[in-house]
Amino acid sequence: MSFHFSKCHSVLITGAGRGLGLAMAKELANSNQRPKTIIATARNPVASKDLQDLSKSFPGFHIVTLDVASQPSIDAALQEVKSIVGEDGLNCLINNAAINISTDLNTVTPEAMMKTFESNTVAPLFVTKAFLPLLHTAAARETGLGIHRAAVINMSSILGSISCNWGSAAAFKSYAYRTSKAALNMVTRCLATDLESEGILCVALHPGWVRTDMGGPQADLSVEESIPSLLAVVASLTEQDHGGFKDYSGETLPW
Amino acid sequence: MSFHFSKCHSVLITGAGRGLGLAMAKELANSNQRPKTIIATARNPVASKDLQDLSKSFPGFHIVTLDVASQPSIDAALQEVKSIVGEDGLNCLINNAAINISTDLNTVTPEAMMKTFESNTVAPLFVTKAFLPLLHTAAARETGLGIHRAAVINMSSILGSISCNWGSAAAFKSYAYRTSKAALNMVTRCLATDLESEGILCVALHPGWVRTDMGGPQADLSVEESIPSLLAVVASLTEQDHGGFKDYSGETLPW
Repeated sequence: MSFHFSKCHSVLITGAGRGLGLAMAKELANSNQRPKTIIATARNPVASKDLQDLSKSFPGFHIVTLDVASQPSIDAALQEVKSIVGEDGLNCLINNAAINISTDLNTVTPEAMMKTFESNTVAPLFVTKAFLPLLHTAAARETGLGIHRAAVINMSSILGSISCNWGSAAAFKSYAYRTSKAALNMVTRCLATDLESEGILCVALHPGWVRTDMGGPQADLSVEESIPSLLAVVASLTEQDHGGFKDYSGETLPW
Repeated sequence: MSFHFSKCHSVLITGAGRGLGLAMAKELANSNQRPKTIIATARNPVASKDLQDLSKSFPGFHIVTLDVASQPSIDAALQEVKSIVGEDGLNCLINNAAINISTDLNTVTPEAMMKTFESNTVAPLFVTKAFLPLLHTAAARETGLGIHRAAVINMSSILGSISCNWGSAAAFKSYAYRTSKAALNMVTRCLATDLESEGILCVALHPGWVRTDMGGPQADLSVEESIPSLLAVVASLTEQDHGGFKDYSGETLPW
């Protein structure tokens, strides 16, 4: 699976300290068709040796501290990113940072629900709002819709599909995670409506069930099976995909 | 439009101090086919003269104080409702209480999002969890699925349909309300999966855009056009509707 990010000058990935975010950052950095600038953000990037190694190995690979649930942290990260991308603006924002607290009907608490909404639904919206000026700057330099211009990629999950949460697919119980991702899908759809005229593509993507810390060892896919394919989907997004919900293989998912 | 609640011994409606909740309580109380017990809850029922009048006019009409966003208030209300319904249990819980804070892309705040999730998504889940023992008691006395046995009715909105939030239907902007109702739809679907084997029907309903304080004077429907029709849909729910999303006319809505 090959993907071409060469027409995309800059990509920012939140939650890149580990898991899927780190895997995406690594895969992009190692690509021949990599974007000029890769910005990997993490709440505590010093703790991620992988990120440190990547920033040493690849010029154009930047690490920025960002706690997506904190507005002061978002504001500080914005200033840093602004000085990194300069007049090019930001082409591709990947809202990947998320939490998953195990919550079935017996164990779910209001606190777990609220904390998950904060990280998985509200934070991506306010990270996007903060970075809009940089996305606008990038959008003003190109036409069409896609990561060559400006895009907001919300990492959702098939677990956020209300339609799919039925029968055997409903066996995985997680009130907090499922509701937060369904709500993120709505955020994506609202943003798509509001940002279309400004040339900013917005989509929700499902990376597949991947063997990461969050996905666990029983997951269907290796990182190697999901990430290149997922990045190929990101690279190929057009106006046809705007406001949509796709999986790592490019298949459209029901809401 | 006629509806028959006579096989449903008890109905509890949250947020019944005004708006749709009050209109449902009033319509039920005035019906020839009313349930034996109608429990109208409100955060501050003393402020609702209409509710006070209803409880004076109809035996079997009870007012219970309930702030759905407060667990101590839920616990206190449960004890009161338990003593009202006794061994019959509770047949029909209508999670109607909700808030709507105006929030477009420019005005939305994290606080507005979180407060709306708390009231519109998390509260209905924890009200339902609290009242489950009373729903179980009712469910144990009947067979099939419907309000004659035990049902959780989540008052959602077409504004919570991710699918419908597109084109001209996306003109109504409300990040907080829309995401909270999409998330409530997911809660409904999770509950439907978990409670099916216990004989408790769960659905999400859209009452139409009704001229209430929340709906505003420009809304499509009068209370008289929506409420009897909505109650007829509630009364006619069967296993076919379990886990679904319908409007006041009985039409199925996409998620």
